Amino acid sequence: MSLNYPYILLNKEKCLENIQRMVAKAKKNNLKFRPHFKTHQSAEIGHWFQDFGVNACTVASFRMAEYFASEGWSDITVAFPVSPFDSDSINQFAPSVDLNIIVSSYKNINSITSKIYHKVGVYIELDCGHGRSGVNPDNTREIALMVNQISQNEFYTFKGFITHTGQTYSANSKEEVETIHRKSLAILTRVKSFWKDSFPDISISYGDTPSCSISDDFWGIDEIRPGNFVFYDLTQVSIGSCTPDDIAIALICPVVDVYPERGEAVIRGGAVHLSKDFITNPDQTKSFGLVCPFDGNNWGSSYDGLWLKSISQEHGLIASRNSELITALTPGQLVAILPIHSCLTVDTMGELYLNSGDLISTMRRRV
Amino acid sequence: MSLNYPYILLNKEKCLENIQRMVAKAKKNNLKFRPHFKTHQSAEIGHWFQDFGVNACTVASFRMAEYFASEGWSDITVAFPVSPFDSDSINQFAPSVDLNIIVSSYKNINSITSKIYHKVGVYIELDCGHGRSGVNPDNTREIALMVNQISQNEFYTFKGFITHTGQTYSANSKEEVETIHRKSLAILTRVKSFWKDSFPDISISYGDTPSCSISDDFWGIDEIRPGNFVFYDLTQVSIGSCTPDDIAIALICPVVDVYPERGEAVIRGGAVHLSKDFITNPDQTKSFGLVCPFDGNNWGSSYDGLWLKSISQEHGLIASRNSELITALTPGQLVAILPIHSCLTVDTMGELYLNSGDLISTMRRRV
Repeated sequence: MSLNYPYILLNKEKCLENIQRMVAKAKKNNLKFRPHFKTHQSAEIGHWFQDFGVNACTVASFRMAEYFASEGWSDITVAFPVSPFDSDSINQFAPSVDLNIIVSSYKNINSITSKIYHKVGVYIELDCGHGRSGVNPDNTREIALMVNQISQNEFYTFKGFITHTGQTYSANSKEEVETIHRKSLAILTRVKSFWKDSFPDISISYGDTPSCSISDDFWGIDEIRPGNFVFYDLTQVSIGSCTPDDIAIALICPVVDVYPERGEAVIRGGAVHLSKDFITNPDQTKSFGLVCPFDGNNWGSSYDGLWLKSISQEHGLIASRNSELITALTPGQLVAILPIHSCLTVDTMGELYLNSGDLISTMRRRV
Repeated sequence: MSLNYPYILLNKEKCLENIQRMVAKAKKNNLKFRPHFKTHQSAEIGHWFQDFGVNACTVASFRMAEYFASEGWSDITVAFPVSPFDSDSINQFAPSVDLNIIVSSYKNINSITSKIYHKVGVYIELDCGHGRSGVNPDNTREIALMVNQISQNEFYTFKGFITHTGQTYSANSKEEVETIHRKSLAILTRVKSFWKDSFPDISISYGDTPSCSISDDFWGIDEIRPGNFVFYDLTQVSIGSCTPDDIAIALICPVVDVYPERGEAVIRGGAVHLSKDFITNPDQTKSFGLVCPFDGNNWGSSYDGLWLKSISQEHGLIASRNSELITALTPGQLVAILPIHSCLTVDTMGELYLNSGDLISTMRRRV
């Protein structure tokens, strides 16, 4: 790492605590734990999960599946609707691992069925209110057509139903998350009980970070797949999934200029480092991150009254409600930025550093 | 490239037309042309500029300066305020090329001055209303202190004043851009005429893509530095800088599912491909891109009534005002997405393809 460019600092202790907490919750609720690895995309962090006894994972693509399979993962769900272009990957990949794919409509499964000639587990994706991909759970006819397709195909094993209740990401409180979570549970258990007699081995795969962090009731669920919790971020703080102290990564950025008369400061740290998600402050201004002191080893609690008000490609603009804090910043100082969306920040940067200076590589690293 | 993942298709003809048009405008207005290379970050596209006789460039970092210097560029401005951490880069790099740096306040120049011991050109950055970095042009005292610092330092050559009128990116019409542009020109010519007697060789470096695309009056300006124009995007269309037909890149994405009952379709194509900028449609909905037919070689005009209404990490959700267009899409079809912000899309993807299949690499490519 070079101090004139932003880098991600990963607090390994916080990260391990986040993993341990979710492992314990899955165990307590008798859930299979299949964490989503799209957040970290890192072989090494995958090994940290293995040290906690985790041996199944979720990924977002066959490329990601291949990366983790080469690191010893042999029970993998690719949690993105299949497309006909994936058939070569599936056929090459399926013989070597326990591979689950997901199908998100009758049209979707039809687009691929004739192209698969190796055994794969198949989940039907349900849309429990997120409005992105998946069958409407009330559309029993379409689900029956899909189940029929799966059960009649010699290469398919019907594994059950999968959902991503991503609408929790728009929630503003724990109560809202719990309400969404209970609704989803009611839908999922209803669908499962309908099909359970014909397919006694089917399971329900569930789990977004807000629900899995906040709720303690997983009645009817068999497996959880949260991803973001490994690092958390300010979006999760605003939802109520975690505290700022649970956030395990920060972007270390140099301050390049300070404008006391405007109550603002400029850092090198922009969209090519953080990506462009934001949250809305109570006064309706946008926040692209919070600013924390950095002592060269660890970051401290965020400054009260400083936030990243805008970012362009390489610049970040710190605004203040307290001009003394701005005046105390100096060009050449390093600050730590807590990210709004850790998944995108890690994907954009492609690598992380521990405070020992050790590099944690990801499959998305830059040359 | 693999068809189950999004890739950037670059229309070389449109790109060359965009370059040629800006080269011609600079020549006609007797302006030095120093295009910003942060948009493409590609050695090969840099060579296309050289074929038009361009021999100076602007970059966003010393890392980018080194990349282009190794490709034969020897007249480079690093258009980001210096920080003390840059001093090693400057000292290593300055002897080998004509290097210009920018200083954005008295504090900023003070943070670096004692650390430089090779000859560099120095521009003072003015903030002509953008509110990001740079000195307030009315603050003659601060400017005088900076000019004094520069002129008394044996390693500094005072090159003049530089500004990025980035507030044009928030404009909604050509007229608004012209108004901002005229105000900036008035400020810049006033500051230049104040200092011209003492420093007859100083110049004014100016230029954002909206102003340079829309205006034909550059009175008092010596150099322009637009970057985005090389590809353009939907933000520039909405400002009035270009037509949709001038956009030289599109993200080619597989359709994975179609939901006629919701009037929506899902593509693989999300924030890790496009980044997360959006524009606001007239009905206040968000647009993360427009959808165009793709025949395997080129994309056509965008479908009237289809747009990307939301994107998550890997998914894109196409919405429609015309359900027939959604019904006509099928899983496994490829569509082309016109990006909202081409600079970030190219940075996120890290590489581009020509329709010959040839790869155009960038300094930000992924392993």
